[in-house]
Amino acid sequence: MTAYPYGDAITAGIDDLAHFTDGGRLTRLYLTPPHRQAAERVMAWMREAGMSARVDAAGSVVGRYEGATPGAPALLLGSHIDTVRDAGRFDGNLGVLLALAVVQKLNRDKRRLPFAVEVLAFGDEEGVRFPSTLGGSRAIAGRFDPAILDEKDTAGITRRRALEDFGCDPSRIAAEARRPEKVLGYVEAHIEQGPVLEAENLPVAVVTAINGASRGMVTISGEAGHAGTVPMGLRRDALAAAAEMIVAIERRAQYEPDLVATVGRLILQSPATNTIAGQATFSIDLRAPSNEARLAALADIKSEIGKIAKKRGVAATADFTYDAPAARCDAALSDALGAAISRLGLPVRRLPSGAGHDGMALSGAFPIAMLFVRCKGGISHNPAEYASPQDIDLAARALIDFVENFQPRPS
Amino acid sequence: MTAYPYGDAITAGIDDLAHFTDGGRLTRLYLTPPHRQAAERVMAWMREAGMSARVDAAGSVVGRYEGATPGAPALLLGSHIDTVRDAGRFDGNLGVLLALAVVQKLNRDKRRLPFAVEVLAFGDEEGVRFPSTLGGSRAIAGRFDPAILDEKDTAGITRRRALEDFGCDPSRIAAEARRPEKVLGYVEAHIEQGPVLEAENLPVAVVTAINGASRGMVTISGEAGHAGTVPMGLRRDALAAAAEMIVAIERRAQYEPDLVATVGRLILQSPATNTIAGQATFSIDLRAPSNEARLAALADIKSEIGKIAKKRGVAATADFTYDAPAARCDAALSDALGAAISRLGLPVRRLPSGAGHDGMALSGAFPIAMLFVRCKGGISHNPAEYASPQDIDLAARALIDFVENFQPRPS
Repeated sequence: MTAYPYGDAITAGIDDLAHFTDGGRLTRLYLTPPHRQAAERVMAWMREAGMSARVDAAGSVVGRYEGATPGAPALLLGSHIDTVRDAGRFDGNLGVLLALAVVQKLNRDKRRLPFAVEVLAFGDEEGVRFPSTLGGSRAIAGRFDPAILDEKDTAGITRRRALEDFGCDPSRIAAEARRPEKVLGYVEAHIEQGPVLEAENLPVAVVTAINGASRGMVTISGEAGHAGTVPMGLRRDALAAAAEMIVAIERRAQYEPDLVATVGRLILQSPATNTIAGQATFSIDLRAPSNEARLAALADIKSEIGKIAKKRGVAATADFTYDAPAARCDAALSDALGAAISRLGLPVRRLPSGAGHDGMALSGAFPIAMLFVRCKGGISHNPAEYASPQDIDLAARALIDFVENFQPRPS
Repeated sequence: MTAYPYGDAITAGIDDLAHFTDGGRLTRLYLTPPHRQAAERVMAWMREAGMSARVDAAGSVVGRYEGATPGAPALLLGSHIDTVRDAGRFDGNLGVLLALAVVQKLNRDKRRLPFAVEVLAFGDEEGVRFPSTLGGSRAIAGRFDPAILDEKDTAGITRRRALEDFGCDPSRIAAEARRPEKVLGYVEAHIEQGPVLEAENLPVAVVTAINGASRGMVTISGEAGHAGTVPMGLRRDALAAAAEMIVAIERRAQYEPDLVATVGRLILQSPATNTIAGQATFSIDLRAPSNEARLAALADIKSEIGKIAKKRGVAATADFTYDAPAARCDAALSDALGAAISRLGLPVRRLPSGAGHDGMALSGAFPIAMLFVRCKGGISHNPAEYASPQDIDLAARALIDFVENFQPRPS
């Protein structure tokens, strides 16, 4: 008996999956040979745990553990097994192994629940290979747009061709859509990918929503000039204007809990130590669990940018092309997850997910919930990504408790 | 008779010199064939105006118009005939032609003054070809450092070799130093290269000082992070910190007349829309006619950077490697220039020079003064550089009046 039986077993599984990679550091893109190898390994584990297992038409691994009555509505658990380039091992894979641990426990106990449990291992979450993303979860939700089958990767291979080479039949994707009455909900465990749980010394949290996001670029056009010869009062300095805007954007975000605003890029035209910047362009990334809060902040930020530009005599254009609504987690599912955490003797911390997840595609079609697991330093998308066996063990216990005590809503 | 006899003649001379270039747009670097051609043309004009003319050991053209007594102390007038790449025609060349116009007038009037008038056309003002600059004026001031003869241009040619190829004898540079009792002062006319005269609708101004300058780089080290997952309160955003500092630097400069501060470069490490900046580096360029004011502002700025960094939990290092003291213009010479402007019926505007000039090397060795001429849009170092024949005409009249009425101080 190890100190953390679930945590140690899941960590071993994570290390095992990490062998399936393109190159030395973990890189496992959608529909590539290492993705196929990882899918085969996951299906083997599913079958060992008494599940049926298959790769669906969109390349997702689907395992099913029947309930007391065959064909009963299913509670979906899972995450994804594709990775970014030079990835960490925990992102996605942890959620699949935690879902598997639930079924392994039921199977060991020879227990059948009043509902089926399905474990999903999506393959298109990271969005690295093709322009769009979440193809697997969109298929399950009945929201797969066949037009994206023509998308090409950088080698010119279409999604359609890549699916066919993977052994999938793209013409059957529409048939993967689940009828709402057959799905009780989708619950995903995932590393936090942020620093909050570590800062608060908590192992797990219940996610309130996957944040909505607005992204755009702001371009400031002032007037270039000689750093020595143009008096301060005659300047129209694009960088100084951008700096004042960046400070204002940060202040607006600080004012609102759970809202985050980031300026991560700033590009100057013809930068030089002895030249007043004539043009500056910067990015804005704005996220919040509430669409209303996000859109109100975006309006305030645009207004503030306009005021600062006017005051300084510079032109400012804001171009926001990306708007993804928030995916709110289901209150009943989330409360049930929270109750399981409580029964472990842990406080129930609720926090939004700043990163995207397959739940965004499933939300609306089915109730969704998420369990966050503390990760070291908040680091993700990096080989240094780490969650401890102790925290994983607690997450497994919480998820098992949640499923074993889950009461499907009367339909 | 043209509308602006001096202005039109000088403009024609400027257009003539603009033919001596490497390539289609005006580029005339120190000790290159077009520099030699321009020097020959200037010497021809000098001789036509009754002057002796030579290229000195540092590559400067030196013309001398004797006074009533041969060998009398000289008033030095002039500017430079080298240019930046893709230059304007007026920078430097205008000052040489205005100086020539003074002697042409004296020669036409067959007038000898109680002092000699020398016209200097320096060739190493722009600092484009070699690492250091102002070699010609440093030689005249007795401040030429022979070590710079080993400096190389990008083609690997040393200053020494370039001087020899130009026909100069570098071993004679030290002998070009003028004895202070033989020099009454150095007066240079130059386009403003800034927008003040245009903004105030004035053709000329008297320069109070060539600004001193401090230049440095500031590096902010915070912590990179995911734009979605790190709450505002846990961030150590290097770009937001830099932005607050840039706003503070601008505010400090606005507080002080004649002081200018510019952040013209800002570089982020691994910039991305969805990433909190972990490191940001920006430049500071600080200039003022008063060294005390500049150094006090620099101390305030460094202190403010430290406070902002501390408040935000980021590290900030400021590295100021460049410190050039201000060159104050001589009060008596400047007042005499102002009196000449006044006699034209014009208001006497005094303003500092934000850009560098040969007077920086001559200041301290001899009294210096400068006359600024309005240029369109404050534009310089650009083919669009322009000063009108009307303004040039007024500048010529002011300079002629100044020289004809100049009273050497009793020595």
